[in-house]
Amino acid sequence: MSLNSTTLLSSEEARLLLDLLFKQHYAVEVVSSHISDIENGLVSVEEEEYKRISSLYHRLQEM
Amino acid sequence: MSLNSTTLLSSEEARLLLDLLFKQHYAVEVVSSHISDIENGLVSVEEEEYKRISSLYHRLQEM
Repeated sequence: MSLNSTTLLSSEEARLLLDLLFKQHYAVEVVSSHISDIENGLVSVEEEEYKRISSLYHRLQEM
Repeated sequence: MSLNSTTLLSSEEARLLLDLLFKQHYAVEVVSSHISDIENGLVSVEEEEYKRISSLYHRLQEM
Protein backbone atom coordinates (compact mmCIF):
# COMPACT_ATOMS: atom_id res chain seq x y z
CA MET A 1 0.00 0.00 0.00
CA SER A 2 1.65 3.21 -1.10
CA LEU A 3 1.03 6.91 -1.02
CA ASN A 4 -0.96 6.83 -4.25
CA SER A 5 -3.32 4.22 -2.78
CA THR A 6 -5.58 7.19 -2.13
CA THR A 7 -5.84 7.83 -5.86
CA LEU A 8 -6.88 4.18 -6.46
CA LEU A 9 -10.03 4.67 -4.37
CA SER A 10 -13.25 5.96 -5.88
CA SER A 11 -14.57 9.11 -4.21
CA GLU A 12 -17.32 7.01 -2.60
CA GLU A 13 -14.76 4.53 -1.23
CA ALA A 14 -12.59 7.42 0.02
CA ARG A 15 -15.57 8.97 1.79
CA LEU A 16 -16.59 5.62 3.32
CA LEU A 17 -13.03 5.04 4.59
CA LEU A 18 -12.95 8.51 6.16
CA ASP A 19 -16.37 7.93 7.74
CA LEU A 20 -15.12 4.67 9.27
CA LEU A 21 -11.92 6.39 10.44
CA PHE A 22 -14.01 8.96 12.30
CA LYS A 23 -16.40 6.28 13.63
CA GLN A 24 -13.36 4.49 15.04
CA HIS A 25 -12.24 7.81 16.60
CA TYR A 26 -8.81 7.29 15.13
CA ALA A 27 -8.37 10.31 12.83
CA VAL A 28 -6.39 12.42 15.30
CA GLU A 29 -4.13 9.49 16.21
CA VAL A 30 -3.23 8.85 12.56
CA VAL A 31 -2.10 12.45 12.16
CA SER A 32 -0.38 12.75 15.55
CA SER A 33 1.52 9.52 14.98
CA HIS A 34 2.77 10.87 11.65
CA ILE A 35 3.81 14.14 13.29
CA SER A 36 5.83 12.24 15.88
CA ASP A 37 7.45 10.17 13.11
CA ILE A 38 8.48 13.46 11.49
CA GLU A 39 9.70 14.97 14.78
CA ASN A 40 11.66 11.79 15.55
CA GLY A 41 13.30 11.97 12.16
CA LEU A 42 11.72 8.74 10.94
CA VAL A 43 9.97 10.61 8.13
CA SER A 44 11.18 13.69 6.29
CA VAL A 45 8.79 16.17 4.74
CA GLU A 46 9.00 19.60 3.18
CA GLU A 47 8.21 22.51 5.51
CA GLU A 48 5.03 23.25 3.56
CA GLU A 49 3.80 19.66 3.99
CA TYR A 50 4.59 19.80 7.70
CA LYS A 51 2.51 22.99 8.01
CA ARG A 52 -0.44 21.31 6.22
CA ILE A 53 -0.22 18.26 8.49
CA SER A 54 -0.02 20.41 11.64
CA SER A 55 -2.97 22.51 10.53
CA LEU A 56 -4.97 19.33 9.83
CA TYR A 57 -4.08 18.07 13.30
CA HIS A 58 -5.41 21.25 14.96
CA ARG A 59 -8.53 21.15 12.78
CA LEU A 60 -9.27 17.58 13.83
CA GLN A 61 -8.78 18.43 17.48
CA GLU A 62 -11.35 21.21 17.21
CA MET A 63 -13.98 18.84 15.78
CA MET B 1 -16.03 13.75 16.39
CA SER B 2 -19.08 12.43 14.60
CA LEU B 3 -19.96 10.77 11.32
CA ASN B 4 -20.35 14.08 9.55
CA SER B 5 -16.82 15.09 10.56
CA THR B 6 -15.90 13.94 7.07
CA THR B 7 -18.08 16.66 5.59
CA LEU B 8 -16.32 19.30 7.72
CA LEU B 9 -13.01 18.61 5.99
CA SER B 10 -12.00 20.36 2.79
CA SER B 11 -11.25 17.98 -0.08
CA GLU B 12 -7.54 18.77 0.37
CA GLU B 13 -7.70 17.95 4.09
CA ALA B 14 -9.63 14.74 3.35
CA ARG B 15 -7.03 13.69 0.80
CA LEU B 16 -4.15 14.51 3.18
CA LEU B 17 -5.80 12.49 5.97
CA LEU B 18 -6.24 9.50 3.64
CA ASP B 19 -2.62 9.81 2.47
CA LEU B 20 -1.46 9.77 6.10
CA LEU B 21 -3.75 6.82 6.86
CA PHE B 22 -2.11 4.85 4.04
CA LYS B 23 1.38 6.01 5.08
CA GLN B 24 0.67 4.67 8.55
CA HIS B 25 -0.49 1.38 6.91
CA TYR B 26 -3.64 1.52 8.98
CA ALA B 27 -6.41 1.69 6.34
CA VAL B 28 -7.20 -2.04 6.38
CA GLU B 29 -7.24 -2.14 10.19
CA VAL B 30 -9.75 0.70 10.41
CA VAL B 31 -12.16 -1.17 8.13
CA SER B 32 -11.57 -4.63 9.63
CA SER B 33 -12.09 -3.29 13.14
CA HIS B 34 -15.41 -1.79 12.06
CA ILE B 35 -16.44 -5.08 10.45
CA SER B 36 -15.71 -6.94 13.69
CA ASP B 37 -17.72 -4.34 15.63
CA ILE B 38 -20.63 -5.08 13.27
CA GLU B 39 -20.18 -8.85 13.52
CA ASN B 40 -19.99 -8.63 17.33
CA GLY B 41 -23.20 -6.65 17.40
CA LEU B 42 -21.55 -3.50 18.73
CA VAL B 43 -22.59 -1.59 15.63
CA SER B 44 -25.67 -2.10 13.50
CA VAL B 45 -25.75 -1.22 9.83
CA GLU B 46 -28.06 -1.76 6.88
CA GLU B 47 -27.24 -4.74 4.67
CA GLU B 48 -26.31 -2.38 1.82
CA GLU B 49 -23.84 -0.50 4.02
CA TYR B 50 -22.32 -3.78 5.21
CA LYS B 51 -21.80 -4.83 1.57
CA ARG B 52 -20.07 -1.50 0.81
CA ILE B 53 -17.79 -1.86 3.82
CA SER B 54 -16.91 -5.46 2.95
CA SER B 55 -16.18 -4.54 -0.64
CA LEU B 56 -13.94 -1.67 0.55
CA TYR B 57 -12.12 -4.13 2.82
CA HIS B 58 -11.39 -6.50 -0.07
CA ARG B 59 -10.33 -3.58 -2.29
CA LEU B 60 -7.86 -2.36 0.34
CA GLN B 61 -6.45 -5.85 0.76
CA GLU B 62 -5.76 -6.05 -2.96
CA MET B 63 -3.80 -2.78 -2.95
